[in-house]
Amino acid sequence: MPRFRAIVEYDGTDFLGFQRQAQGRTVQGELEAALGRIGWAGTAVLGAGRTDAGVHAAGQVAHVDIARPTVPDTVRDAVNQHLKPLPIAILAAEAVDESFDARMSAIQRAYRYRIVNRRAPLALEAGRAWQVMRPLDAAAMHAAAQHLVGHHDFSSFRAAECQAKSPVKTLDRLTVARAGEEIRVEASARSFLHHQVRSMVGSLALVGEGKWSADDIARALAARDRTACGPVAPPDGLYLVKVDY
Amino acid sequence: MPRFRAIVEYDGTDFLGFQRQAQGRTVQGELEAALGRIGWAGTAVLGAGRTDAGVHAAGQVAHVDIARPTVPDTVRDAVNQHLKPLPIAILAAEAVDESFDARMSAIQRAYRYRIVNRRAPLALEAGRAWQVMRPLDAAAMHAAAQHLVGHHDFSSFRAAECQAKSPVKTLDRLTVARAGEEIRVEASARSFLHHQVRSMVGSLALVGEGKWSADDIARALAARDRTACGPVAPPDGLYLVKVDY
Repeated sequence: MPRFRAIVEYDGTDFLGFQRQAQGRTVQGELEAALGRIGWAGTAVLGAGRTDAGVHAAGQVAHVDIARPTVPDTVRDAVNQHLKPLPIAILAAEAVDESFDARMSAIQRAYRYRIVNRRAPLALEAGRAWQVMRPLDAAAMHAAAQHLVGHHDFSSFRAAECQAKSPVKTLDRLTVARAGEEIRVEASARSFLHHQVRSMVGSLALVGEGKWSADDIARALAARDRTACGPVAPPDGLYLVKVDY
Repeated sequence: MPRFRAIVEYDGTDFLGFQRQAQGRTVQGELEAALGRIGWAGTAVLGAGRTDAGVHAAGQVAHVDIARPTVPDTVRDAVNQHLKPLPIAILAAEAVDESFDARMSAIQRAYRYRIVNRRAPLALEAGRAWQVMRPLDAAAMHAAAQHLVGHHDFSSFRAAECQAKSPVKTLDRLTVARAGEEIRVEASARSFLHHQVRSMVGSLALVGEGKWSADDIARALAARDRTACGPVAPPDGLYLVKVDY
């Protein structure tokens, strides 16, 4: 059956995450419902990343098998038409080999975390960034973040409900940079543990506030214990931006 | 009575514009209601720009007189607290002389218009930019825009319901530049006619599509006739970004 790869953008605010659940609105569920409305029912959509409730995507990747003859541009336009007015959009679609699997074939995932560091609440960016009132030192956060880069046991930055077989992952990149009132954290790895990015960002924010030193980050990592981690940052600021194959 | 100047950010999507109306939710109305909840009732809020329904602000300026003794930071924090969960925020407040008038004292207003030029609908930026599917030539739009800069009769780019005494305005700056899939139009003037920015953007989009030449923009301006203008661009992409005094 012809397989298509789609790049998907969504505002995760009003969804319970990407993955279909027994109850509640999910991105996967809405994509499958749109396919059903087109007449391509019964086709499962599989995503590269299981983004959580409230987490966004600018470049999620999904694959879908469609039994009826069609072309990639029709997949993109028809699904977009049937998704309206939901904040989910197919940015691009292309035909791929049946061996392609959006989740298993991925070799790199890139997430961005946006912090708006200011006293006033967010009006234009509400739900799309984490507002932190206390002044953050982005350079100190970046320096501390380098302790986390590499091949480590990330048990300290893992949610209790994480289903990964092993807590050992290789974090390829973790950068923190300020541009005006916004601080951007960029993280890349083949794969991440559940809540790993938000857990790392929450602890790095403690460094930014001056409550933790860079050594405290190293100690938290070495502890391999969830209780050694700082608070988990809210989902609002997190975006799955790119998946490489 | 002590007067304060406030810089206000808002997502205009769910408001009927800045200015209070007999019915419906407005930014001014919500600011005054928040002041009332604090116990500073009866204080009118006056804004520098009467943004329309759906138009946003990153730097609207308003002034307010508050009879009770207070300090600027308290004005900012208390109003923000009482505005929750509305997408309106006071970014900063400062004490000003009673001669200061947010509207009359302004010497320059800067608006930004955001176009996202792509085929897919907007998910993350829905309501916050104008999605244009047809490819736009931003350089051609910028060149054509220069015909509008200067002291002109802008009747062709004016809403029928505009209340300005004269259609003659001085447009100080109108630039168009592309960054990836986004095209940004930046417009500065002491003051604008009703719908002027959106009317100019709508006509420039025709240039971007290749339907109009730069000369057609010059001809539309010279016509001094509303019917000579292209379609008015939607409010979604428009932001009042800065007011100078």
